[in-house]
Amino acid sequence: MKGTMKILLVNNSGIEKTLVMAEEIKKQLVQLGVEVKVENASMKVEGTDFDSIIVLGGDGTFIRAARQHLDMNVPMLGVNMGTVGFLSNIEAHELSEYLPRFLQQDYSIDERMMIELLIRRNGEIRQRSYCLNELTIKSKEGKILNLDIRIAGQGYGSYRGDGIIVATPTGSTAYSLSCGGPITDPELDVFIITPIASYLLAQRPLVIAADKELCLEAIGAADAFISMDGQLKVDLQPGDQIFVRKAAHKLKMVHLKPRDFFATVDNRLKRNKEEI
Amino acid sequence: MKGTMKILLVNNSGIEKTLVMAEEIKKQLVQLGVEVKVENASMKVEGTDFDSIIVLGGDGTFIRAARQHLDMNVPMLGVNMGTVGFLSNIEAHELSEYLPRFLQQDYSIDERMMIELLIRRNGEIRQRSYCLNELTIKSKEGKILNLDIRIAGQGYGSYRGDGIIVATPTGSTAYSLSCGGPITDPELDVFIITPIASYLLAQRPLVIAADKELCLEAIGAADAFISMDGQLKVDLQPGDQIFVRKAAHKLKMVHLKPRDFFATVDNRLKRNKEEI
Amino acid sequence: MKGTMKILLVNNSGIEKTLVMAEEIKKQLVQLGVEVKVENASMKVEGTDFDSIIVLGGDGTFIRAARQHLDMNVPMLGVNMGTVGFLSNIEAHELSEYLPRFLQQDYSIDERMMIELLIRRNGEIRQRSYCLNELTIKSKEGKILNLDIRIAGQGYGSYRGDGIIVATPTGSTAYSLSCGGPITDPELDVFIITPIASYLLAQRPLVIAADKELCLEAIGAADAFISMDGQLKVDLQPGDQIFVRKAAHKLKMVHLKPRDFFATVDNRLKRNKEEI
Amino acid sequence: MKGTMKILLVNNSGIEKTLVMAEEIKKQLVQLGVEVKVENASMKVEGTDFDSIIVLGGDGTFIRAARQHLDMNVPMLGVNMGTVGFLSNIEAHELSEYLPRFLQQDYSIDERMMIELLIRRNGEIRQRSYCLNELTIKSKEGKILNLDIRIAGQGYGSYRGDGIIVATPTGSTAYSLSCGGPITDPELDVFIITPIASYLLAQRPLVIAADKELCLEAIGAADAFISMDGQLKVDLQPGDQIFVRKAAHKLKMVHLKPRDFFATVDNRLKRNKEEI
Repeated sequence: MKGTMKILLVNNSGIEKTLVMAEEIKKQLVQLGVEVKVENASMKVEGTDFDSIIVLGGDGTFIRAARQHLDMNVPMLGVNMGTVGFLSNIEAHELSEYLPRFLQQDYSIDERMMIELLIRRNGEIRQRSYCLNELTIKSKEGKILNLDIRIAGQGYGSYRGDGIIVATPTGSTAYSLSCGGPITDPELDVFIITPIASYLLAQRPLVIAADKELCLEAIGAADAFISMDGQLKVDLQPGDQIFVRKAAHKLKMVHLKPRDFFATVDNRLKRNKEEI
Repeated sequence: MKGTMKILLVNNSGIEKTLVMAEEIKKQLVQLGVEVKVENASMKVEGTDFDSIIVLGGDGTFIRAARQHLDMNVPMLGVNMGTVGFLSNIEAHELSEYLPRFLQQDYSIDERMMIELLIRRNGEIRQRSYCLNELTIKSKEGKILNLDIRIAGQGYGSYRGDGIIVATPTGSTAYSLSCGGPITDPELDVFIITPIASYLLAQRPLVIAADKELCLEAIGAADAFISMDGQLKVDLQPGDQIFVRKAAHKLKMVHLKPRDFFATVDNRLKRNKEEI
Repeated sequence: MKGTMKILLVNNSGIEKTLVMAEEIKKQLVQLGVEVKVENASMKVEGTDFDSIIVLGGDGTFIRAARQHLDMNVPMLGVNMGTVGFLSNIEAHELSEYLPRFLQQDYSIDERMMIELLIRRNGEIRQRSYCLNELTIKSKEGKILNLDIRIAGQGYGSYRGDGIIVATPTGSTAYSLSCGGPITDPELDVFIITPIASYLLAQRPLVIAADKELCLEAIGAADAFISMDGQLKVDLQPGDQIFVRKAAHKLKMVHLKPRDFFATVDNRLKRNKEEI
Repeated sequence: MKGTMKILLVNNSGIEKTLVMAEEIKKQLVQLGVEVKVENASMKVEGTDFDSIIVLGGDGTFIRAARQHLDMNVPMLGVNMGTVGFLSNIEAHELSEYLPRFLQQDYSIDERMMIELLIRRNGEIRQRSYCLNELTIKSKEGKILNLDIRIAGQGYGSYRGDGIIVATPTGSTAYSLSCGGPITDPELDVFIITPIASYLLAQRPLVIAADKELCLEAIGAADAFISMDGQLKVDLQPGDQIFVRKAAHKLKMVHLKPRDFFATVDNRLKRNKEEI
């Protein structure tokens, strides 16, 4: 890489120690001749001319960074500082050791499909967002929800129940799994449509090629809301249409240490074991 | 039965035609020498010296009447005026025909266990209620909920997920069924504890003898709420304890026409079929 | 207890060390003035005038003893010598210590409902057996099986799939659990009817009061078989009828150490954890 | 198409009327200048120089033809003569009407991924076969089965239970669905690994990109067998390894009438409804 390398350092400003850590890492990077900008939750950095991103925090912080900076289309390294770090590849105390390799781009990239989501209200796009794990549509007060689903323009009947999840393969080991969805190979470009507490007992999860656009519409649902990765929530109005597509770019997760899908699944099941 | 018979006529005042119907039936009953009081949703009748109750409406109205008048401990006849009437035994247009048999108590009684529910906050009972189908504890905004469960005073580990259902056998074919709970013989006195979207993948529904008291406590859950038969909702505060017991009386459902459990289940599955 | 106490000592003769152990225990018991008869798998003891039974072995041996000696209607102590011992209460090395208490009947009894099973072929009873965990009807070569089910004389539709399980509460944490059946309080007298890989997607497990007799009939199934606790298998012929009732006696499990249902469930889930 | 067209006519010889029908169709085709060879179950036609295949029968016959003639790599038309015909596109009585369009290749092709299966025993390939729906490994007498699974050379832990299914997207609406597997878009090239009655309660179905080779090995299982589309069964010996790959060719299903995936799923669920 010619010229000065520019790195965006994202930290979870809500946690004191990540702020301290961010400043420390910035110092190290500057000494190595790198230009660094620090972003925390309260100040989103808007520029897009970074060469890569380092995210300090747990899975929540990593997912937020993925959603907010996917358009940059640059490699993203997760450094775990939280208790749950499936998406990060190294621990905070290992960063100094791995930094030289990271700067030389001596790593593998694990590409992950993300969802692009549009909410259309009264003929206008009201919201545009990305999801790394899943989007969820539910009713607000636990009432039954009716949803129409169109896949690539064709009707696929209606769901009726607590709500619905549209997950990526990355999200297949998260909330979708708790609702009966399958574990899905992250190399696949698919949507997993998983009903939540379906009133229709014969209803089953559905795996769809992600080159098909989905359109979801809550029927008569003034009190429904949509949740993106559990982080961004938008109340829905009757007639709102949710369009779901594969995002143009993939998330480029940096792997400095070997890590495969099966290990991830195993971790997910282990996590389950520890907490029973 | 000696003396004048007294009947409470419950109608769903929200629906115009049930009001008209209620007045008509009252007239018929008065002509047959019965004393009648009409109750609608806006005016709960408090007296408890009735000989029986007639409920005009769908399942929602019947469940409300069961919850509000269980303490009267008298037979209750459901007359279906709604679209969904699993709990009613005759249709509105059949009532005149069956009225004489009803007054002579020429019918069978189908006893159904109900739940008695107490919410204790800061050492005081804040709410006391009955449920015919189930109680549900969920978080308000779709966040993950942690619950401690004690059965007959002994800890039964903790649930983690969207929430939990405690259903009666009557409720076993309702919401609990959608979440994986078993269909349960209404002659049994049991609680069915069904997790909703459990984070712990090995978690399973549990059927417990209803002579054991349950105690549920949401952990760190300022935003959880409890719903009784989907009709009454109460926000929970941290430290609130929910005590669940078998109600002292059973609901005495009047059956003028033969109807058994298996028909009910069959109807539930048929309903499912119609709507897929 | 007056007169000489008589104990039946059941051991799993297939395992050398239980034979040695049985002889050793017999010696101890005889010294304590007890009359002892040793039974191993190859020689079933037929007498029924024992005061209690001690079973040396794992769960398989205990279940076999329960099935074969239920009619004796005496307390049964499980001494674990296998790797899986959910049904036993003490370990082999603890027996000497607990023997005096056992002989003084200083213990609690945990009563467990068992299934009595009859196979009727061409108007005659061909088989009569007990089950502690469950009976299973399956096809022999993995073909689809059709079954008619009658509950207390009334038709309950038909199952279609790999087969069906009828479990006791004790068996609710065994095979039935793997097929989606609920965990069930062992104090309840119920049958749990759990479909195996049901072709009908809306089919669900069913919990039925055990005072109702079940009748199962495989339709057109020359290649079906019935398995009792996985120990005894009988090939079915077209027209065979399986009658399932609650056995007249309950199994009287001896508890020298405190142990409750919840611990058992917890063990079952822990066992699961260890092996994932 | 230049030269004489050659068609293989496959019929289910077990059914008298398909034999009659086959002769009739052969006559029609010969009159249209087509060269025809008739194959029935007892005589497999070995030549591979056909231009297309017509299959008379139900889904069973179609699946058998697909498995036996995939290597021909030519379009295959299913003509339904059975009661269940999800895989066929036209009914027997419509064939005359559609024949001219078929000969002019005026149709769409629906490509379906198939599984290629190898059984290796003592270092040699003992069996090579294709599957359109799924392969299933089970124990023969209902005993518990232990299986090791390797995905693209990496261990993916072990399954323990009644057995395992590896399904194609086409098979995702068949047996796999009954065992909790997801409905899967037939445009995808994936394997769906669905456990049958898993002893490990946290076990879940898995969707894997079909460019990865699977290797399955039953552990200590002298009594296990493998079933290919429920049609071909092979007993397994300890140490046998099952290799599963995507077949080199796709099945080319002829669609003379419009038909999409969603209709198929809908039919599957409708079939379910009719039979409950």
